[in-house]
Amino acid sequence: MARMTRSESQAQTRADLIATARDLFLADGYAATSLEKVAEEAGYSKGAVYSNFRSKKELCLEALQLIHATKGAEVAAVMARQEPLEERLVAFEEWAERTLGDVGWTMLEFEFIAAARHDPELRAALASSLSTTHTVVRTLLAALVAAGEVTLPMSVEDAATSVLSTGIGLGIQRAIDPGISAAVVTRNLRVLLTGSAAGQLP
Amino acid sequence: MARMTRSESQAQTRADLIATARDLFLADGYAATSLEKVAEEAGYSKGAVYSNFRSKKELCLEALQLIHATKGAEVAAVMARQEPLEERLVAFEEWAERTLGDVGWTMLEFEFIAAARHDPELRAALASSLSTTHTVVRTLLAALVAAGEVTLPMSVEDAATSVLSTGIGLGIQRAIDPGISAAVVTRNLRVLLTGSAAGQLP
Repeated sequence: MARMTRSESQAQTRADLIATARDLFLADGYAATSLEKVAEEAGYSKGAVYSNFRSKKELCLEALQLIHATKGAEVAAVMARQEPLEERLVAFEEWAERTLGDVGWTMLEFEFIAAARHDPELRAALASSLSTTHTVVRTLLAALVAAGEVTLPMSVEDAATSVLSTGIGLGIQRAIDPGISAAVVTRNLRVLLTGSAAGQLP
Repeated sequence: MARMTRSESQAQTRADLIATARDLFLADGYAATSLEKVAEEAGYSKGAVYSNFRSKKELCLEALQLIHATKGAEVAAVMARQEPLEERLVAFEEWAERTLGDVGWTMLEFEFIAAARHDPELRAALASSLSTTHTVVRTLLAALVAAGEVTLPMSVEDAATSVLSTGIGLGIQRAIDPGISAAVVTRNLRVLLTGSAAGQLP
């Protein structure tokens, strides 16, 4: 294998640190994770962390972006399948059941949002991250409309907010009470997309 | 005015402490509010607080219950109006616009849920509180169905989870970005109740 260039090596270090930070933030939460521990766990010096990220806040934002990008790509992959819409909705429901309300993820988001209460800069960063997630959902819905697969009873913009709201709200409830089913997200999506909550498949 | 009996006086002290705690928790958050400050602000001794509540956690649960009961009563009052459904939905939308995403309230809920991450007893209490809120929403929806005003495209149980999820999820997004409109909750509710997102009124 060819030796990495300096900039490739730097990018690799940064990606390693973000992936390790993600795992630690998810497992232990925001407050309990230190930059020192991320460095140690990833096998880098503290200096490597500090030269890549200004603060734990910045590192956590990057880790959350990585999490969001991964989840978004999972859903996009489901929706891109060459299958009837109903089968993709069933696959989406399985994804939602596995994903929404994951305690580590949900609690990390909460803890971080709560930390933003008195931090306008962080709140702006979270608003920007939320807007990116909204764009991903909107793009997926717009593709269904463009393909003539669905007619939405509201603007794509509002439909995306609706889907995102249901997902976030249900995630919180499932983090508190894992007995709550994620099926409601899909039922809601079905009503939005097809006007009926019932699927054609069992 | 007749002098209060001992038990009336005790109930009054308890109610005063909960109301004061609610105001402080909403203004300053969970971590920043101490039982001492609640006592001082309410004009009682520290002993009065400690004899009424085992812990700050218990007092905050009571304060959240008071908040939930107040919000629930507000929505119930709107839905009990002798007006066409469409006018009640407009009034509900005004309520949602005023209420969902209130930073003090939303952040308090988050901070408290995050504190429950490693506290199974608190998580059970939150699950019970969530279940009560779900019952309130379900009861309001069931009344609309019973009155023949709407036909739901899913069970009342699931419809309540759907409405609650959208409200919670949108509240979080508005707490992060107040520019997001609460109208989506009502649009979602309209689709659920009437099959169409558009209101008959402007």
